Amino acid sequence: MKHLPTEPYKGVRDFYPEDMAVQQHIFNTWSRTAESFGFERYDASVLEPSEIYKSKGAENEEMVNEQTYTFTDRGDREVTLRPEMTPTVARMIAGKSKELAFPVRWYSIPNLFRYERTQRGRVREHWQLNCDIFGSNDIVADIEIIALAYQTLINFGAQPEMFEIRVNDRREMKEFYESLGISDEEIITKITRLNDRFHKIDRSLYLAELRQITPDSADAILAHLEESSQSENEVTRGLNAVGINNVKIDRSLARGFDYYTGTIFEFFDTDPSNNRSMLGGGRYDNLTGLFTSEAVSGVGFGMGDVTMRDFLDTHGLLPAKKAGAQVIVILTEERFNIDGEKVAMKLRGVGVPTLVDISTKKLGKKVAAADHSGAGYILVVGEDEVSRGEYVLKNLADGTEMSGTLEDLAQGLAV
Amino acid sequence: MKHLPTEPYKGVRDFYPEDMAVQQHIFNTWSRTAESFGFERYDASVLEPSEIYKSKGAENEEMVNEQTYTFTDRGDREVTLRPEMTPTVARMIAGKSKELAFPVRWYSIPNLFRYERTQRGRVREHWQLNCDIFGSNDIVADIEIIALAYQTLINFGAQPEMFEIRVNDRREMKEFYESLGISDEEIITKITRLNDRFHKIDRSLYLAELRQITPDSADAILAHLEESSQSENEVTRGLNAVGINNVKIDRSLARGFDYYTGTIFEFFDTDPSNNRSMLGGGRYDNLTGLFTSEAVSGVGFGMGDVTMRDFLDTHGLLPAKKAGAQVIVILTEERFNIDGEKVAMKLRGVGVPTLVDISTKKLGKKVAAADHSGAGYILVVGEDEVSRGEYVLKNLADGTEMSGTLEDLAQGLAV
Repeated sequence: MKHLPTEPYKGVRDFYPEDMAVQQHIFNTWSRTAESFGFERYDASVLEPSEIYKSKGAENEEMVNEQTYTFTDRGDREVTLRPEMTPTVARMIAGKSKELAFPVRWYSIPNLFRYERTQRGRVREHWQLNCDIFGSNDIVADIEIIALAYQTLINFGAQPEMFEIRVNDRREMKEFYESLGISDEEIITKITRLNDRFHKIDRSLYLAELRQITPDSADAILAHLEESSQSENEVTRGLNAVGINNVKIDRSLARGFDYYTGTIFEFFDTDPSNNRSMLGGGRYDNLTGLFTSEAVSGVGFGMGDVTMRDFLDTHGLLPAKKAGAQVIVILTEERFNIDGEKVAMKLRGVGVPTLVDISTKKLGKKVAAADHSGAGYILVVGEDEVSRGEYVLKNLADGTEMSGTLEDLAQGLAV
Repeated sequence: MKHLPTEPYKGVRDFYPEDMAVQQHIFNTWSRTAESFGFERYDASVLEPSEIYKSKGAENEEMVNEQTYTFTDRGDREVTLRPEMTPTVARMIAGKSKELAFPVRWYSIPNLFRYERTQRGRVREHWQLNCDIFGSNDIVADIEIIALAYQTLINFGAQPEMFEIRVNDRREMKEFYESLGISDEEIITKITRLNDRFHKIDRSLYLAELRQITPDSADAILAHLEESSQSENEVTRGLNAVGINNVKIDRSLARGFDYYTGTIFEFFDTDPSNNRSMLGGGRYDNLTGLFTSEAVSGVGFGMGDVTMRDFLDTHGLLPAKKAGAQVIVILTEERFNIDGEKVAMKLRGVGVPTLVDISTKKLGKKVAAADHSGAGYILVVGEDEVSRGEYVLKNLADGTEMSGTLEDLAQGLAV
């Protein structure tokens, strides 16, 4: 018989326990930080009606057809595996817009799918922390959402020097262009697209291209960009006030999404080997327009697991391998395995993770494996222990021993 | 403009924060219990090559085509949204069968998809705790896996009287049929299918149908089934030995899956209003046959979130609504909102979940909302507090107050 391949579907990842432990560390840190700001978790299915992605016009329809997993179900409904969380959360917020007590702070850790040619570092499925404050126009919401993204990295063990927060504001840029007499949306879009390449191309090339778009204002725009880092605005001042100082204005910052209307921001890794944007977000005026005539504004960001793992790896912040159990029960002979489970149930009952080694290895090898596993203790179960009802708990770190009845030992270890 | 509907795709669920809190409670209890037995978590994508579900023959191919979400990607690969976790974990175990130190204990909490006519209580997507011990033929593994399922319910707050564990053994049944001279697999399958209806139909109807399958042995088989609950085997004795007594042999227990070869078990809710199977599992000989010639045996079970929620609901074990934050910061005027965030950042930094009320409600309404939220404390920030650098923390449960600098209060609350 020919065997099937053991690789996962192209572009998605298997999470064996070692990788899953890192993934869980990332999810737990995300979740703990968001909840420390009073954010509430939500979720939805990966399956969404395709129309929620298509309704923004022909360009979007093309994107849906070519870059997402979209198929027709047997009830003739068009279904898409969500490529981003924003349309889903907009749908959910719109569905309860009359009941929710705004502002609300919501977060989620969805998996998202993109159908694309797989290349190094690009995957077809990734997980993303999504945080939003809905229903507040106060600039303090912008400051808080950036503070939350900042605190997430700090809670992973990052130092502020390891990353830089770059902030821009769509309204401020618009006002600036208007002060130069530029109000044509198409021209502004062209300038914004060029600005997005500002840090990647030569100053002279930037200026040459800018002159082709707007000959008269090119010098003023370049000067405005170049004085960014000496400027401040309400957001950067607010962040400084709450103790966040690795932040600067960057007027070249563009962000791809149409729906941002105010503050936009990105976090960049400062390590030269991983010098790229790690996360981004911004403020939008009308999230829910597709679903309801009641406009809900907000501010939010998204942070991906692949990018996060790269950042942690680059800065030596990945967690040490975690032991599977705190106590490992070792049997002198196989016939004591039920006794071993009985001992273990007592310890598990008081919250102590306990594994019974039911392998057929020799006693010495079992002890060596327990030592290697990172567990805190071993507890041997054999003839003598079972008949006397007294057990010895050996601390693997310092070799000390504690002995007593199961009740004594459980009490000593209880969490 | 016509608005899009806010309902999710047919048959899947939105998890608004209140529902998500229940879902997280279920996932956390599952995860905590599995880890207390030394199980390690794994995961994989919902996308799997369709062939891993089809290879068991034509009947399976029909199941894949009619009851799963299967589609062809643009690279002409056939892809299925996983309907169960077993083929995935078989693929993963086979992929590392040479490196893994068996026995291994693995668990996962995947979402699974079934394409079916939606009816009351049936959903197209659900989540399932999957636990397996791979690579042990020792009966203690069967006992441990059942003990884990038992302890999971106990950790939700269940009492043993609330459910009943029913155990059967495919080998024992086969031996019994052979003792009656029945060894034809087709006849045994027919009897097993009928047994599956034993508790649902009249004794006389059961006997009549059984006589049609096997006239000579019908009475002996019925007697064998009826004396089930007075019997015991190694598994039930082992469970009793580790303190689990709500268990009995039920020789009518069939379980649907072909691949079980030894112990099979199900947990039944004893409440008459929810009298049904809550979870099930069993032992299999060769999990990995599709992927490798090295057979890996094991024992495992699956437990679904919808069934679990019904059980918790039936027995009044659903958790109380959890407060979003421990401390709510209230501003006397909007202009203190940055000061409010500054205070909050200090508390969040020591692990205290802190929410700043940035709503435009009046002061009194903010206090009432905080009181209603279930938070432990409020902390008011205004002119006086900011200028003196001293704050008052009011305990909402007993009305007591604690005052001091931010450092003092953070220290007093630190977790």
